[in-house]
Amino acid sequence: MEGYRLFLALLGSALLLGFLSVIFALVWVLHYREGLAWDGDAAEFNWHPVLIITGFVFVQGIAIIVYRLPWTWKCSKLLMKLIHAGLNTIALMLAIISLVAVFDFHNAKKIPNMYSLHSWIGLTAVIFYALQLVLGFVVFLLPFAPVSLRAMVMPIHVYSGLLIFGTVIATALMGITEKLIFALKLPAYSSSPEEAIFVNTLGVLILVFGGVILWMATRPHWKRPCEQNSKTQQRNGGTLDENKEGSTMADCSNANKPDVEFANEAAARKRNAKFDEAGQRSTM
Amino acid sequence: MEGYRLFLALLGSALLLGFLSVIFALVWVLHYREGLAWDGDAAEFNWHPVLIITGFVFVQGIAIIVYRLPWTWKCSKLLMKLIHAGLNTIALMLAIISLVAVFDFHNAKKIPNMYSLHSWIGLTAVIFYALQLVLGFVVFLLPFAPVSLRAMVMPIHVYSGLLIFGTVIATALMGITEKLIFALKLPAYSSSPEEAIFVNTLGVLILVFGGVILWMATRPHWKRPCEQNSKTQQRNGGTLDENKEGSTMADCSNANKPDVEFANEAAARKRNAKFDEAGQRSTM
Repeated sequence: MEGYRLFLALLGSALLLGFLSVIFALVWVLHYREGLAWDGDAAEFNWHPVLIITGFVFVQGIAIIVYRLPWTWKCSKLLMKLIHAGLNTIALMLAIISLVAVFDFHNAKKIPNMYSLHSWIGLTAVIFYALQLVLGFVVFLLPFAPVSLRAMVMPIHVYSGLLIFGTVIATALMGITEKLIFALKLPAYSSSPEEAIFVNTLGVLILVFGGVILWMATRPHWKRPCEQNSKTQQRNGGTLDENKEGSTMADCSNANKPDVEFANEAAARKRNAKFDEAGQRSTM
Repeated sequence: MEGYRLFLALLGSALLLGFLSVIFALVWVLHYREGLAWDGDAAEFNWHPVLIITGFVFVQGIAIIVYRLPWTWKCSKLLMKLIHAGLNTIALMLAIISLVAVFDFHNAKKIPNMYSLHSWIGLTAVIFYALQLVLGFVVFLLPFAPVSLRAMVMPIHVYSGLLIFGTVIATALMGITEKLIFALKLPAYSSSPEEAIFVNTLGVLILVFGGVILWMATRPHWKRPCEQNSKTQQRNGGTLDENKEGSTMADCSNANKPDVEFANEAAARKRNAKFDEAGQRSTM
């Protein structure tokens, strides 16, 4: 793998930033705010930032780059698709529970729902995320979709995934802004109390996490190599060390083709020209 | 050009969304708020959203896709670089004026500066944007940088540009959230007065504008073809019609190489393998 050390450094940074974001969210609600409960009060609302940051930011981010981890290249494509879909399903479930918490809190406190730009864009992101998951399941996991459809949908799937991820981060930053203005009164947000500095830092962590994930997800030389090549590696021991840098891609003429498994190698060869191009698009 | 009609439709949508965003920002401050002035009062603050949306969102978005307009492919690369840099310089100047307006307003009203997440991320985005402009000028416009350096910097330049653009949009959405909470008191933001619906819609327009620009900027088949090919086109009349769909890329073996002009064709051929790969990265 080309630039293996850089990849590892970025993966380590992403994991650290993601973990730190979750820890910061927990410290925010447990130390600075009313803790966590399911009682229709502020402690129920607090599940909203914790679950969104854990599921919709951190888990979604990891789901995006899971194909790029070189030690998974010896695993079957089907297993990796299941892990990708599974992580995204967990993220969606956590996001939905976090929405229930906030609607429940609003209803108990007689606060209107869905008035803010944060709520408009956030709910739209959850709906599109669910659609993306269903579409991805039908087209890429179930065995019925023709190869040409998969090739056509792949660049849209990749682009939508990254756009939704970016939108979720923007929505989280709006949510932090809203909550700090509403919650900090004496002292106010504008007087920069300790909580304001702490939660602003959480916002910066989330943004940098997003930036690292987007860089890793859009480097074409860090794409999972074609199925045939990863099987050869598996037979040869399956380890990926830095001395073999680049070889996993260089040996594979279809490295850029989309996430499609061919039942028939002869048919595959015919289609290569088209898929190479479609695969390039899927880099984003 | 492959998918010319779709490209035109998306360009039209981007222009419409961008213009609408600027009009919405103007209607917001002129109809719903205190208008525009330079008096240390709210009307001075109002320059902030108007100039950010005009310059830092709309002009920056157009600067990003300016190389992709097929009717500019007959223009020299140098001219296009000057237009790209010029539009980005205009965007930066408008962003800086908009920052002066908000600092001036805060100081006159004794409101602290730089306490909010919006201000932290927004100022960071302006600083990185300025650095990106200076770096781009030194590496890609001045004739001193070696070809290898240009090839190395290009994918970082493209990624940083798109990340800063996305961050600017996220920051604009945070700013809208802040302003609506602070400005709407009787009736409050939570009671969804007309202004709240109108400005939430502005936020959605900005986000969709960003989504369209990012799609256009990351399709590899809409990249400007290599210099040699566009010169051939120029000699043949320079028009690009749909019947020639795809030919501008298909004829050009270096279509994916980065924005580098080679003085020596023989040297260029030697370097092709490396640049083809670097060029792929530059798709984002």
